[in-house]
Amino acid sequence: MSTAWTARYALRTKGITSSAIRDLLKITQRPGMISFAGGLPAPDVFPIQRFEEACHKVLTQQAALALQYGATEGYGPLRELIANNMARYGIKAKVENVLITSGSQQALDLIGKLFINRGDRVLVEAPTYLGALQAFNVYGAEYVSVPVDDDGLRTDLLETPLRSGPKFMYVLPNFQNPAGVTLSEGRRHELVLLADKYGIPIVEDDPYGQLRYEGEHLPALVVLDRENLRRDEGYSIGNVIYLSTFSKTLAPGLRLGWIVAPPEVISKLAQLKQGADLHTSTFTQFVAYEVARDGFIDQHVKLIRKVYSERRDVMLQALKEFFPPAVSWTHPKGGLFLWVTLPQGLDMAAVFKSAVEHNVVFVQGDSFYANDGREGSRHMRLNFSNAAPEQIREGIRRLAAAVKTELAATTFLPELPVGV
Amino acid sequence: MSTAWTARYALRTKGITSSAIRDLLKITQRPGMISFAGGLPAPDVFPIQRFEEACHKVLTQQAALALQYGATEGYGPLRELIANNMARYGIKAKVENVLITSGSQQALDLIGKLFINRGDRVLVEAPTYLGALQAFNVYGAEYVSVPVDDDGLRTDLLETPLRSGPKFMYVLPNFQNPAGVTLSEGRRHELVLLADKYGIPIVEDDPYGQLRYEGEHLPALVVLDRENLRRDEGYSIGNVIYLSTFSKTLAPGLRLGWIVAPPEVISKLAQLKQGADLHTSTFTQFVAYEVARDGFIDQHVKLIRKVYSERRDVMLQALKEFFPPAVSWTHPKGGLFLWVTLPQGLDMAAVFKSAVEHNVVFVQGDSFYANDGREGSRHMRLNFSNAAPEQIREGIRRLAAAVKTELAATTFLPELPVGV
Repeated sequence: MSTAWTARYALRTKGITSSAIRDLLKITQRPGMISFAGGLPAPDVFPIQRFEEACHKVLTQQAALALQYGATEGYGPLRELIANNMARYGIKAKVENVLITSGSQQALDLIGKLFINRGDRVLVEAPTYLGALQAFNVYGAEYVSVPVDDDGLRTDLLETPLRSGPKFMYVLPNFQNPAGVTLSEGRRHELVLLADKYGIPIVEDDPYGQLRYEGEHLPALVVLDRENLRRDEGYSIGNVIYLSTFSKTLAPGLRLGWIVAPPEVISKLAQLKQGADLHTSTFTQFVAYEVARDGFIDQHVKLIRKVYSERRDVMLQALKEFFPPAVSWTHPKGGLFLWVTLPQGLDMAAVFKSAVEHNVVFVQGDSFYANDGREGSRHMRLNFSNAAPEQIREGIRRLAAAVKTELAATTFLPELPVGV
Repeated sequence: MSTAWTARYALRTKGITSSAIRDLLKITQRPGMISFAGGLPAPDVFPIQRFEEACHKVLTQQAALALQYGATEGYGPLRELIANNMARYGIKAKVENVLITSGSQQALDLIGKLFINRGDRVLVEAPTYLGALQAFNVYGAEYVSVPVDDDGLRTDLLETPLRSGPKFMYVLPNFQNPAGVTLSEGRRHELVLLADKYGIPIVEDDPYGQLRYEGEHLPALVVLDRENLRRDEGYSIGNVIYLSTFSKTLAPGLRLGWIVAPPEVISKLAQLKQGADLHTSTFTQFVAYEVARDGFIDQHVKLIRKVYSERRDVMLQALKEFFPPAVSWTHPKGGLFLWVTLPQGLDMAAVFKSAVEHNVVFVQGDSFYANDGREGSRHMRLNFSNAAPEQIREGIRRLAAAVKTELAATTFLPELPVGV
């Protein structure tokens, strides 16, 4: 079926396709299916009562403002609350450093719009957040990929890619999506030094930073940024743009994220946001403010940490119990995901198909690579926040059965030395 | 203050500036100021009680879904309600024709993203909606402008511009923003015939269509579209993309709009929307559905019509009473705006400055022209929906005083024949 429209798509949309993850949603909704696929928070921890009180308060006391058009930059008290909350993590932000976005995804879109010319290279982790690739692809980004290991981005491999002059680096330092790994403190220092040395700024995406289940909080890149330290003006005006969101700490259905950047950059981003959606829903901003205020969000984050760390532990225990020894996985210190590595030679598409037959789904690793999906062909991303503990155990049991079936059906060739 | 970021803006953002209207907001917030500037609905008509009931219902019965991630295309029941409501205006849409957007502004952004290559021409009305120009400018649109008169777009002037092959036409047929004029029925037929003859599709932006205060409803372009009529498949698969919104009928703070397009186009737009903000707030969609359902929105639109038509009449009466005879204005049959034309030779910037001194503001006409702002230098856009009737009367009195002051200070040269 073609119309005058279908012949008129812009060049930029060539090859833009739906995210594999969102397309998986249909499968996950089959009855009996256990899903480790999406990055969905547990609905059990949504603070529903507090939302009710907040809606009531906003509608009885501030409806004329909360239902009206609002400022593109966002609702003042919410921007201030965000700035104050970040201060406790050492992030110095004034209100004019903070732009409210329609989820963190919009932050990525606006950053792409503001900075990426067709053909510009962006340095990304391998693997990296699929949504960032989707956002940047539209603007014609090309990618330089640098692998992660258990300590996050391999900073020892950065110099050559940085010399090639990428427009910026896109990094997820905490409990990375999809691999679940965390950038070590030593590497954080190395990364900001290298950024400074080569003059390549950093987009630091931190949706999960508060959801740490073990170990100490590590300083954000925006805190360590050499340019900020040099200027020392009491607020963020350096070379790191920092992104975060309420999706994992309050509720993703609000679509509320934020950008911390130098005021001059915030002003440009706000101009682009005007053209993109005028502003984020005033109503959800007012409600989120009333939910989060007076320290509620901190108490609530403690509850989330407790629930999710239990689920992570159940998943780790079940993996150990059910999976064959040839399979390995990361041990995430926080966040929502872990990353499983299967033996080389296994056909991941066959594993996926077998898993679906066993009524369990995950996301295949190849989606998370900017340049060559084959790097991901041994991996699966498992989410542990959404399913209840007993479901997690049962799901891993089913997944192990699927993997064992495929292992049994595979003839493994000896691994050859590289170059052969 | 420059950082590594400020040297890295993409070419597309050159010349992107903040909308004059949104920058006016600061002035409008001064105490004692009467504003005819924004296109703000009257907060008096927000159905607050109904919103309260809706929030309560959603949070007690559906919180796990309403606060969670949702489908990019939007909440099914809301898409269905929209399709059913449009059917009564003759617009045939199935659920798969409807994409929920984060306000109509996002619809414009997604359309720009999907269709506009740098240098593509878009045919627009002169004057036209400023937000559309902002959305399209980012993608490098150029413009062919065709003037409007009291019967809307001058279809008699369309053939030459259509021969130049614009990518699409962007038209506001009902109570146009900013001029308040409505495309006559005869011209609607001419327009779809010309679109068909030259194979140039139409984006029909209809935020105000339901807010008609006199006369009969006229058929939408998407209904008259020749391609739709030819195919006659019972739903919209032709050459008109239709946009509308809940901003003027429920509340703009929700940021809920929608696109009606052929399913194939909806699917592409949804892919772009995934990268832009994943999806529109599930919470506001659930709440809007509960507010609008069971015929409430139709009853509510009747109330809005009553309140706004009274305000329009007060403004028309006050203009007649206070303004000098050299000034003329449009008589909008609906919507939120009227358009005032001052005598040639008057310095609009001076009128604006004088108005602000008299504690009244409006938007200067030059913002609404794609190509040459000078065309707008005799015009001001006045909003009549937001201020209370007694304020409207007082505001027009003040504005008349400002205009008279500037008229007295201006030496008028005789108007010369065109070309001299």
